Amino acid sequence: MKFTIIGGDAAGMSAASRAKRSRPDLEVVVLEQSLDVSYSACGMPYNIADPNASIEALVVRQAKVFREKQGIDLRTGHRVNAIDTGNKTVSGNRSGGDRFQVDYDHLLIATGASPSIPDLPGFDLPGVMPLKSLAHGRQIKTFIEANGIKRAVIVGMGYIALEMCEALRARGIGVDMVKPRPTFMPGMHPDLAHVVKTELEDHDVALHLGRTLKGIEKSGGALRVITDDGALEGDMVLVAVGVDPNSELAEGAGLELGPSRAIKVDKSLRTSDENIFAAGDCADAFHVVTGERTWIPLALRANRAGWAVADNVTGKAVSLDGVAGTAVFKAFDLQVAKTGLTPKEAEASGFEPVDVMIKSRSRAHAQPDATTIRVHMVGDRRSGRLLGVHMVGKEGVAHRINAPAVGLHQRMTVEAFSQCDLAYAPPFGPTWDPMLTAAVQLLKKM
Amino acid sequence: MKFTIIGGDAAGMSAASRAKRSRPDLEVVVLEQSLDVSYSACGMPYNIADPNASIEALVVRQAKVFREKQGIDLRTGHRVNAIDTGNKTVSGNRSGGDRFQVDYDHLLIATGASPSIPDLPGFDLPGVMPLKSLAHGRQIKTFIEANGIKRAVIVGMGYIALEMCEALRARGIGVDMVKPRPTFMPGMHPDLAHVVKTELEDHDVALHLGRTLKGIEKSGGALRVITDDGALEGDMVLVAVGVDPNSELAEGAGLELGPSRAIKVDKSLRTSDENIFAAGDCADAFHVVTGERTWIPLALRANRAGWAVADNVTGKAVSLDGVAGTAVFKAFDLQVAKTGLTPKEAEASGFEPVDVMIKSRSRAHAQPDATTIRVHMVGDRRSGRLLGVHMVGKEGVAHRINAPAVGLHQRMTVEAFSQCDLAYAPPFGPTWDPMLTAAVQLLKKM
Repeated sequence: MKFTIIGGDAAGMSAASRAKRSRPDLEVVVLEQSLDVSYSACGMPYNIADPNASIEALVVRQAKVFREKQGIDLRTGHRVNAIDTGNKTVSGNRSGGDRFQVDYDHLLIATGASPSIPDLPGFDLPGVMPLKSLAHGRQIKTFIEANGIKRAVIVGMGYIALEMCEALRARGIGVDMVKPRPTFMPGMHPDLAHVVKTELEDHDVALHLGRTLKGIEKSGGALRVITDDGALEGDMVLVAVGVDPNSELAEGAGLELGPSRAIKVDKSLRTSDENIFAAGDCADAFHVVTGERTWIPLALRANRAGWAVADNVTGKAVSLDGVAGTAVFKAFDLQVAKTGLTPKEAEASGFEPVDVMIKSRSRAHAQPDATTIRVHMVGDRRSGRLLGVHMVGKEGVAHRINAPAVGLHQRMTVEAFSQCDLAYAPPFGPTWDPMLTAAVQLLKKM
Repeated sequence: MKFTIIGGDAAGMSAASRAKRSRPDLEVVVLEQSLDVSYSACGMPYNIADPNASIEALVVRQAKVFREKQGIDLRTGHRVNAIDTGNKTVSGNRSGGDRFQVDYDHLLIATGASPSIPDLPGFDLPGVMPLKSLAHGRQIKTFIEANGIKRAVIVGMGYIALEMCEALRARGIGVDMVKPRPTFMPGMHPDLAHVVKTELEDHDVALHLGRTLKGIEKSGGALRVITDDGALEGDMVLVAVGVDPNSELAEGAGLELGPSRAIKVDKSLRTSDENIFAAGDCADAFHVVTGERTWIPLALRANRAGWAVADNVTGKAVSLDGVAGTAVFKAFDLQVAKTGLTPKEAEASGFEPVDVMIKSRSRAHAQPDATTIRVHMVGDRRSGRLLGVHMVGKEGVAHRINAPAVGLHQRMTVEAFSQCDLAYAPPFGPTWDPMLTAAVQLLKKM
């Protein structure tokens, strides 16, 4: 039996490794268009921040190891252009240009996502770069070092933009951030968004909100990002306005697409063709709160889905519950975490959201180093269910968010959550954990 | 209507405040034997560690505030000796010796717990002190400062003993710890216990295990703790061998007792007398994993139970789910956290425990400051349920434990827990959170 995988990143290599481990007799072929496999994409901003770290340190496992130790037929520089579902083959071109064709019994599409690039003049100039693949990371790091970058413009203010902003500031690079929408972190309660915004400004990051982009121009040795309200100049421009799923291959093969044009998969990661699976940033998922399809491309899901595909291919039927949209990022000294739905998302899914914003402390009364933790919690008035939590603070936020995430998987009510026996010791929080305080306050409004 | 409360600490004052807030017309009388109310008992070791902090900083709210702002009839220096359930009165003595009698419609017993003191010679000598009440904290702090303590012996190695050990070391005081049982942290997996033990030894704490205590003697200006295998000398002796519930009053009134002789209460915190509630360290609780009664005296439960009693007294029927035994403590640079059952406890409750011990990292691959996190996870082979988690590490442990705690409240399976969408970003953990890695490994053994 032959298991062919398109894409050698998180989902693809997780699936390949696990399938081969479970069934050493299985023929596993991985077709990866680039030369990089199995690297920590999420680690790139932290690596770029550190002039002494080699970008190659992000490679988790060498291609050689997959080939020689694990017996995976890993073919880098192989770009797939088409899937023939009738003949069960995929075809494409090698980096050199040669055509190739590979057949399959089971196929996994793990083609990931690509950075969105605004369709405006100048976004293809040298020094205008997105960050998604290791090649991008290498390019940015080399560019910074080769050109002695002093000032950068970041287009976008999502979490990749914020992580890169911190990375550049750590290297002493001045940062202007710009985006068309007038609201900073629109998915976040304004009080929380304000705290994050202030943290950026405290680190000398200039935020330009509500500026419609017109294009990028070269101006001497520098680049000018032109907006409807003036231009921003930098030695480089980082484009971080979001990503799109790489679903063209799947679409071309007639597979159904889901939200955001991600490849539609069932809980077993099967596409609309029973012999084809999809996993990772190119595929959709069920949201455990709404039960609806969603597209939230994150690393844990990619790894987990890759494993689940391997199990399903090798004969162990596995079905995944779904995602809660749990995420965390660091913005200088702040931890910003979320799980579940915002009030707006909740309303769009037919809930009747009630929310509360509370301030608490990261440590107990009388502990000298206590800092503020802000919790925004959302519940459903009709069912009493917990729907989502957003949290911001300097410590104890990143791991706290996992408790309500588990609650969301269990379709827990706010009342049940409020009764949970959470850990307490003075160095780690107040007697009533900030999340319990939020739940107790939210209950009063429901 | 009159609500009388015996005991003015966490459970008692929480109940008094909340009842008065809900029903301002309610007559609320609190009888507290000491002069201290509403202080952070758990904060004492940290306060004692700091020579510049006043012990009075631990007082959360002054008696005056309860009396004048909240309208609570708070009577300190009132020790209750007897409850007459027929006539619905309590009686006792004032500090001065005068008798008093107070009637009630609803009574709350919130008498707390007292430190266990071994029944051996010398445990009543000056300089031999337990730590439970604020009076004890004051006494220890004054004793350290008045006598320029250089060396202390701690009898016991539980979490109070460990927190006090750290506090004394922070003040440059040499510490010997001694206990009769041969095993350090017997409730913990040996690998975890070993890490905690090493952390203590790295901070120059001398641990004497398996030494039967014979008594304490005065020896010049010092105290000698005599054991079957030699004596340990110190300028003070801290006794931290555990606590016992203060249930004598309840027992004297004919109320039923539960595990460890704590006062037996139902989920509404009612004792076997329908007009009498009990809450806090003197009362038992249901364990959410076993469904059985248990006695785990911790601060959050005391506060929460106090609130629930207030609600039940003021007409809002409240029933509490129970406790999961979630706890965390700091031991120098380590965070030690647990929730649920150990394999031994699980077996005693009729489960068929399977457990796994894993090592993971506090941050992602390629993050320079990553440290080791060890997770010990227990599941039930028959039902597949998650039964308990123990975790040790230098960061990210204290709040991670809340996720499995929520899972225990929900009677979640290990498989369901392994599917949870937990937060990931490189500064805060690996893609697969250590708890997920543990769950995935545990599943293989189940």
